[in-house]
Amino acid sequence: MTVEDVLREIKGKIRGIIPPSIDVTEVEFEGALLVIYTTTPDKFADSKDLIKQMAKMLQKRIVVRPDPSVLTDIEIAEKKIRKIVPEEADITNIYFQPDTGEVTIEAMKPGAAIGKEGQLLNEIRKTINWSPSIIRAPPIQSKTVQEVRGYLRSMSDERKEILRKIGRKLHRGVSDNEKFIRMTALGGFREVGRSCSMLHTQDSKILIDCGIDVSSDNNGSPYIHLPEVLPLETIDAVVITHAHLDHCGLVPLLYKYGYDGPVYCTPPTRDLMTLLQMDYLKVAAADGKKVPYSSENIRNVIKHCITMGYGDTTDITPDIRLTFHNAGHILGSSIAHFHVGEGLYNIAFSGDIKYERTWLFNPAVNHFPRIEAMVVESTYGGRDDYQPSRKEATERLKDVIQCAMKKKGKVLIPVFAVGRSQEVMIVIENLVKNKEIPTIPVYLDGMIWEATAIHTAYPEYLNNKLRNQIFQQGENPLLSEIFKRVDSVEMREKIIAEEDPCVVLATSGMMNGGPVMEYFKEWSQDKKNTMVFVGYQAEGTLGRKIQRGNKEIPINISGNIVNLKINMEIETCDGFSGHSDRRQLLSFINNMSPHPERIIFGHGEESKCLDISSTVHKKFNTNTAAPMNLETIRFL
Amino acid sequence: MTVEDVLREIKGKIRGIIPPSIDVTEVEFEGALLVIYTTTPDKFADSKDLIKQMAKMLQKRIVVRPDPSVLTDIEIAEKKIRKIVPEEADITNIYFQPDTGEVTIEAMKPGAAIGKEGQLLNEIRKTINWSPSIIRAPPIQSKTVQEVRGYLRSMSDERKEILRKIGRKLHRGVSDNEKFIRMTALGGFREVGRSCSMLHTQDSKILIDCGIDVSSDNNGSPYIHLPEVLPLETIDAVVITHAHLDHCGLVPLLYKYGYDGPVYCTPPTRDLMTLLQMDYLKVAAADGKKVPYSSENIRNVIKHCITMGYGDTTDITPDIRLTFHNAGHILGSSIAHFHVGEGLYNIAFSGDIKYERTWLFNPAVNHFPRIEAMVVESTYGGRDDYQPSRKEATERLKDVIQCAMKKKGKVLIPVFAVGRSQEVMIVIENLVKNKEIPTIPVYLDGMIWEATAIHTAYPEYLNNKLRNQIFQQGENPLLSEIFKRVDSVEMREKIIAEEDPCVVLATSGMMNGGPVMEYFKEWSQDKKNTMVFVGYQAEGTLGRKIQRGNKEIPINISGNIVNLKINMEIETCDGFSGHSDRRQLLSFINNMSPHPERIIFGHGEESKCLDISSTVHKKFNTNTAAPMNLETIRFL
Repeated sequence: MTVEDVLREIKGKIRGIIPPSIDVTEVEFEGALLVIYTTTPDKFADSKDLIKQMAKMLQKRIVVRPDPSVLTDIEIAEKKIRKIVPEEADITNIYFQPDTGEVTIEAMKPGAAIGKEGQLLNEIRKTINWSPSIIRAPPIQSKTVQEVRGYLRSMSDERKEILRKIGRKLHRGVSDNEKFIRMTALGGFREVGRSCSMLHTQDSKILIDCGIDVSSDNNGSPYIHLPEVLPLETIDAVVITHAHLDHCGLVPLLYKYGYDGPVYCTPPTRDLMTLLQMDYLKVAAADGKKVPYSSENIRNVIKHCITMGYGDTTDITPDIRLTFHNAGHILGSSIAHFHVGEGLYNIAFSGDIKYERTWLFNPAVNHFPRIEAMVVESTYGGRDDYQPSRKEATERLKDVIQCAMKKKGKVLIPVFAVGRSQEVMIVIENLVKNKEIPTIPVYLDGMIWEATAIHTAYPEYLNNKLRNQIFQQGENPLLSEIFKRVDSVEMREKIIAEEDPCVVLATSGMMNGGPVMEYFKEWSQDKKNTMVFVGYQAEGTLGRKIQRGNKEIPINISGNIVNLKINMEIETCDGFSGHSDRRQLLSFINNMSPHPERIIFGHGEESKCLDISSTVHKKFNTNTAAPMNLETIRFL
Repeated sequence: MTVEDVLREIKGKIRGIIPPSIDVTEVEFEGALLVIYTTTPDKFADSKDLIKQMAKMLQKRIVVRPDPSVLTDIEIAEKKIRKIVPEEADITNIYFQPDTGEVTIEAMKPGAAIGKEGQLLNEIRKTINWSPSIIRAPPIQSKTVQEVRGYLRSMSDERKEILRKIGRKLHRGVSDNEKFIRMTALGGFREVGRSCSMLHTQDSKILIDCGIDVSSDNNGSPYIHLPEVLPLETIDAVVITHAHLDHCGLVPLLYKYGYDGPVYCTPPTRDLMTLLQMDYLKVAAADGKKVPYSSENIRNVIKHCITMGYGDTTDITPDIRLTFHNAGHILGSSIAHFHVGEGLYNIAFSGDIKYERTWLFNPAVNHFPRIEAMVVESTYGGRDDYQPSRKEATERLKDVIQCAMKKKGKVLIPVFAVGRSQEVMIVIENLVKNKEIPTIPVYLDGMIWEATAIHTAYPEYLNNKLRNQIFQQGENPLLSEIFKRVDSVEMREKIIAEEDPCVVLATSGMMNGGPVMEYFKEWSQDKKNTMVFVGYQAEGTLGRKIQRGNKEIPINISGNIVNLKINMEIETCDGFSGHSDRRQLLSFINNMSPHPERIIFGHGEESKCLDISSTVHKKFNTNTAAPMNLETIRFL
């Protein structure tokens, strides 16, 4: 049966179920959605049960949209909205999406715009026929979020065509071929960096993550040129667990080489990923390195992104259904759960997981309706990989800052823009609020401000406590006045030259470039000052050398290599990691429900993957493996 | 550097080393061979050292051929040969191969044709410029061998073009890509049937075996449609360990779907494989089954065969060198040993192995210059898979035949045409010769005669003892007068109706069709008669049902299903298997030199593969695995 036949049959069934007063002009797939166009959207809106009934009958997720012919002209519609919504709602923006017939109203007080029991919302719909949604205006504007959304609006026709194409491919039906489920390790197994796996069934080829190993001397690419992967047109879907470059750094490359399917991720992952990929290109170009792809390829990723929140489920191929669950690692990070066949098999890819409530996120989810196999990270899977608790880490950071303040010195903290920065910000804000350290300025340099803005745009992805604090108590610690954005070279120079103590959070996290170097060059000679490492320093990085105690570092200052003497205090605060330590990994597995039959370990140095694989096998009598890159494991 | 450049460089080097009196007209690759054409072949022949010197310098296998311009016209050349060779040599045939400038002289007494110290041979060469070789005329003619050789002669130009193409691809040079070695299980893992593995390196894709599971209800094909295998044009070489259909039954299919590279095997494997593939087509058509390929595809296999004897080594891709070693299983069966890179890694695929001196073959080779990994069969790898010795099996067969003779009954032995038949023939011939059983006629029905003829065409592949018996003592037990070929329906009917006792060896071995059924239908009611199973009876076959003791069998007689009562004696003689039993497998591994780091088990029911894998791991502390089909293991 062709997709056309399927759609015709569906249209017939819909006609049979809805009253004759409701008009259906078109039925179309957009991705996994079944979209019904109608000239009478208000009548559909009035009978919510009808949609439920159809969804159940057709076993599809259904969206009803106004037929383009009944949409009020945008300029007139905007005027009508502003007339209906009271002034106190404080509308900051109105976005129309002609491709979907939706209008998004951004307001400072969304409640006032929605009206009692959605009264105003209904009035808007009936007046202009567009489907309205009201969102809270973000407290600080993220350039990335604005640009991504603006870009998507600007090419909405093309986007619609992309979704239709994906929808048609997705509904091609399953084959009669012999069933199998297997996974190929394409990168990031028995190593950290360039994470990439391929899930392959008789009907589907799915890439999970497509990272880059930025520390590699080669191109740092996973094995995406293998014959089982190529041509890239044969890949049905790419699923991204989170926005760190070792998980998504080479997604744009896929489009460069012919992939043109969807990328599934959470909305924050899409935006953070765009930020980090763009920055990667900028840094690579600045370092005179060959850039593997262009910003055009990054825009291609955005165009093909299908975002889903935690807990949302969608068909991504004829035989695979995807659900994202919170992974606790960074904003929007997720465990990708794949349901294969109708009850045939379930396999989840953990991505990077934190199984502890952090200052920002809830712990990683480890309860699933069903799960037979799980691929789990092993960054801290080694025998002795125990990390201090969040509480201990806080105490330690407090002591270090107190000490530095007493000496009237500066505190320089090299951080990764996404994740660690925001954790450290919250800890410092808390210490200041509780008067455990004096109120001092905390400067944010590099991409930290922008990454923080993206965090404030997605408060629903933060942990319960922080979300309550923000929504109920109206207190967002990330927006505290102690934080100051360094937004110009002049400002940076002024801070460097300042007499008074302060704290600076600056990228990059491992000191291989970035603004942190500017502060370091000037402050390292003075023993009053302190540098604090809060993140993992990889072998071969400048950060690792300094952390180890090197007291003289050759450094490039305006083209000359100068031997820099380090007199400043060098401290390390462990316990801020976004990865589960060994105890947390074992406890994550121990508390899994149901317990999977098979656990595959990756994302760790070889010895760590092998060690935790063998430990879990002995402890839980589970079939475990730590495959090498290029190996394929069969599940069914 | 292009292949043209490589050839030009080689030509220069050759010119630099040979005296000016020797002329070189062309230098070309044919497969792995470097072929030098000359108008003065006799001068080359006079200085054997020169070729050795060039081979060492160029690191290539070198063949010198007369330039076509100096070859004496075939008709005249034949007359001259007959004039030079004395009558007593008894020439039976002369074959010219214009593509290589070779002439093969088949004689009853090859020694007389060669002359003292090769005198006559030299004279022939100098007189006609063709390169002569003398072979012994086979004692019985094999239709298959004649047809295969005749076919190859008939398309020698095309064959030459094929070899050139393979040669050029083979000498493309290695890439700079990251090195890896891995193997994908495509069929015959945790099962018996459809054996197929892919060896994959950064520069090579090689299929080892491509069998069919004839017992399968589906198409019985290995997973050759996987994305890592396709398109078939990307396969560099196919290597066949032996001629049984579960190892080579689908090689013609590869050509049907676009493969056009070489098939490496021993000469007997090429001929037996052709016989069995042709028979497979015939039987499938007769049973009204869909045939997966045509005889044209089989001819394509022949055309692309590059045969090698045991111990010969050849480059098959830029980074892989292949050597065949005796596997002891059937005529021409071999262990395929792959040397990867220059000393990088060595891996061997056992195919089916018999680690015992049988009546026909030497035990499988288990000493190699180097070996890091080995893929080993597990047919009898189970905990209790012990088989009687060859001696015990002989005793048992003697008793059974004696018993039947006393009752004046017939003995019906269902056999596989290749391997088991010839073993049983030798045992019976021996029993008769030693007067342990009376001299009775032994009828061979089905393909047995033809398979036996192929055995007599390749005496150098038989074991030392049998070879000596044939060459030194002029006694070939396979040619004993007790064996009579059943070559017509009339003769078969006469044998069936005969009063006197006799032995019939008839195919098929598991009684799923074939002439054995005709004898069975008529003889099964009479309790004087005996049926003896000497081979493995697979689950679901008629043979298995009878062996188990079913006394009434529904059978198709001229279109009617009739319940056949079985009164004849049913006996089983274990110990004739061509597979190593558990003891032999363990002893094969124990005596391996050097001992490999990794052993992969396949070709056995799931429990047997798993059991022997775990036993060997514990016993020898070797890294073992029993992968599933569709899994990939990485070695380096």
